Amino acid sequence: MAEPTYELFDKVVNLCKRRGFVFPSAEIYGGFRSTYDYGPVGVLLLRNVKDAWWRSMVQLRHDVVGLDASILSPPAVWEASGHLANFTDPLVDCKECKERFRLDKLDDPETCPNCGAKGSFTEARQFNLMFKTHAGPVEGKGAEVYLRPETAQGMFLNFKNILETSRKKPPFGIAQIGKSFRNEITPGNFVFRTREFEQMELEFFVPPAEADQWYEYWCKARYDWYVEHGMPEDKLRLRAHDADELSHYSSGTSDVEFLFPWGWDELEGIANRGDYDLTQHATHADTKLEYFDQGSGERYVPHVIEPAAGATRTAMAFLMAAYDEEIVNEEQRTVLRFHPRIAPYTVAVLPLSKKDELVGVSDEVLGLLQPHYMCDFDVTQAIGRRYRRQDEIGTPYCVTIDFDTLDDRAVTIRERDSMEQERVPIEALRDRLGERLGF
Amino acid sequence: MAEPTYELFDKVVNLCKRRGFVFPSAEIYGGFRSTYDYGPVGVLLLRNVKDAWWRSMVQLRHDVVGLDASILSPPAVWEASGHLANFTDPLVDCKECKERFRLDKLDDPETCPNCGAKGSFTEARQFNLMFKTHAGPVEGKGAEVYLRPETAQGMFLNFKNILETSRKKPPFGIAQIGKSFRNEITPGNFVFRTREFEQMELEFFVPPAEADQWYEYWCKARYDWYVEHGMPEDKLRLRAHDADELSHYSSGTSDVEFLFPWGWDELEGIANRGDYDLTQHATHADTKLEYFDQGSGERYVPHVIEPAAGATRTAMAFLMAAYDEEIVNEEQRTVLRFHPRIAPYTVAVLPLSKKDELVGVSDEVLGLLQPHYMCDFDVTQAIGRRYRRQDEIGTPYCVTIDFDTLDDRAVTIRERDSMEQERVPIEALRDRLGERLGF
Repeated sequence: MAEPTYELFDKVVNLCKRRGFVFPSAEIYGGFRSTYDYGPVGVLLLRNVKDAWWRSMVQLRHDVVGLDASILSPPAVWEASGHLANFTDPLVDCKECKERFRLDKLDDPETCPNCGAKGSFTEARQFNLMFKTHAGPVEGKGAEVYLRPETAQGMFLNFKNILETSRKKPPFGIAQIGKSFRNEITPGNFVFRTREFEQMELEFFVPPAEADQWYEYWCKARYDWYVEHGMPEDKLRLRAHDADELSHYSSGTSDVEFLFPWGWDELEGIANRGDYDLTQHATHADTKLEYFDQGSGERYVPHVIEPAAGATRTAMAFLMAAYDEEIVNEEQRTVLRFHPRIAPYTVAVLPLSKKDELVGVSDEVLGLLQPHYMCDFDVTQAIGRRYRRQDEIGTPYCVTIDFDTLDDRAVTIRERDSMEQERVPIEALRDRLGERLGF
Repeated sequence: MAEPTYELFDKVVNLCKRRGFVFPSAEIYGGFRSTYDYGPVGVLLLRNVKDAWWRSMVQLRHDVVGLDASILSPPAVWEASGHLANFTDPLVDCKECKERFRLDKLDDPETCPNCGAKGSFTEARQFNLMFKTHAGPVEGKGAEVYLRPETAQGMFLNFKNILETSRKKPPFGIAQIGKSFRNEITPGNFVFRTREFEQMELEFFVPPAEADQWYEYWCKARYDWYVEHGMPEDKLRLRAHDADELSHYSSGTSDVEFLFPWGWDELEGIANRGDYDLTQHATHADTKLEYFDQGSGERYVPHVIEPAAGATRTAMAFLMAAYDEEIVNEEQRTVLRFHPRIAPYTVAVLPLSKKDELVGVSDEVLGLLQPHYMCDFDVTQAIGRRYRRQDEIGTPYCVTIDFDTLDDRAVTIRERDSMEQERVPIEALRDRLGERLGF
């Protein structure tokens, strides 16, 4: 990949808008508070990131099951988890200009960066980052409900239900993909930090004695996942937290970090959470959240290893990592070198002309490939310009149908990175693409 | 399917809890206001419903693109759409007992059904069904934000962005799957009407003169989709709205309805919405939302055909439709006769014994199938009980590995509905399952 400069970052953000990856939400009304919509290409990228995670974490394993828990959740959950008390940022108001700031982000905690007043701040108050709303027809204390700030609590709340119904036993995991919401005071860096975002979280429950080895296992497995899906190793690192960064209940946390223009920043955290979460909920809900091992006759509260990734920021990192520019025939070519499982479209079907003669055979080729691959179909403009567009959205293969196709029943496969072309009979097309893609 | 009685309904609800389809949210805290979590089997069912929809509506077509818009959205959007003014239920309070009711749902609008008081109701006030919260550190008018009550507005807001970046032109569609939220006064019927739910919506933009024919096309295509995925035709109908049911802007709406215990009820609505939505947003945002046809030189606001389906209630209807009981060997067998694309697991791999000898070959079979199919793996209990469990969660095929497998390198395929068994060499297993499943 190119160096992760702000210049590159701006190019990626620009490409996102221009090619339909990401649009600011409600843009025709002037946009809205750092929320974003994923357009036709972006939604495919995001789906592929999530599907690749689900495939690795659920489908290809027999020790992990899935979950899809509700976003709306009652205060009791966040009381037990500690979010009501501790999921806060310290805020101060300037008494002069009435602006509001995060105390821990101020360069100078005495001077207002807006109006320059000195010593004008109110005392800091703790601002809770959870979005609150009300369910039912009466707004009042009993009707309060929160949008979850993380998907993880859903797994702890359902631990007992899943243990009783799924026939799994420790070591086993519960995986979930879904939206979470945090009322960030300072969202920013495009889709990296937004108030609405998507997570991919696993809670892996293990016998206490095995916690350390599973923590090591998941640190390695999760780092490898990014590499296997095309992340360059020189822009990726696994960083163990220092002791003073750790939560009081965590005996170890490592972040998978990507090199952004603003430095190394987190894509995923893998935490050894001990029995903190299950114990908190067992106490608050006055229930037992433990496992009885019939073999050993032992009863214990499993320890939890939690690999928690951000889907939206991971999609953005894949975009940054894939972006490349090169000179071809004295013209600049922009190309997103996505891994084929991550690329929005796998194949683009491009009839050389939109004349009637090619319609039948184009439909045939499209019908042959669509059941297996996400296909783009683009029929106008010069073929060179269409190749460039597919390069810019990262499509690994273009299949071109020309007038010779009518005679020889063959088409041209054009590969994104090398731009090399190969003539293939229609009858062999699906197999040939399968060979090249590996799926 | 069995007759859709309340008795059947109760059995399905019971099965959902017992086998891990659906759990009440935050159940260890006593549950929460009719929100639900989808457990290990339910999340697979729901994913399959959504993936089948996405496959039919996006992947297998070249005239529809996808979108994933934000849930949080500013008041301007709902002002323009009419939701702020009109998305309301009429509420009354009883002055005697202080209970609150939906006026339009009262059997007797004079008498309180709670305390029996007559003429004790306050005047009705309009209660808006949108969940409201606040973004940013200041709670106030300017910080108000709503959870979307439908995904549809995202498509209208991005119409121009997508027209400019996707190279599609009418007739073309924008499809979206995602969560929506409505503060229903009377949620109920299990996951049929919940405050948090998931939608699958298409907005199909067409030249005005073609609106009627596309409306007919989508009514048929959507009805057929349910049938193709295993919905029995005697429990499914397409019902055109009467003139007095139509919104003022709609020239035609039809519902795909399923026969629930409480009668026919909506899974999906297909509406001919005219140019209402684009015109509303064009006016409120003071922008142009139209298409310029370079061929004819004509400029027009496309009309919209909207097939809008509920993912969660469709999953529930598939569950109801699939449920069956029969007597086998003088014992009752419960079986969910899901279409293979809808069934949570496609294949269950069942080693006859958990003895060490079978571990290697079991892992081999699992490794062979997991890349292609969602597989369950269950190693304990008598094989008959394990078959029954797979029947109850609707797994189309079980693959049994026994001690003969060590000699003949063959396994037994057992089919869910007929319970017939076939011995197949491991080397031929993947192809044989592919043949039987059709994918």
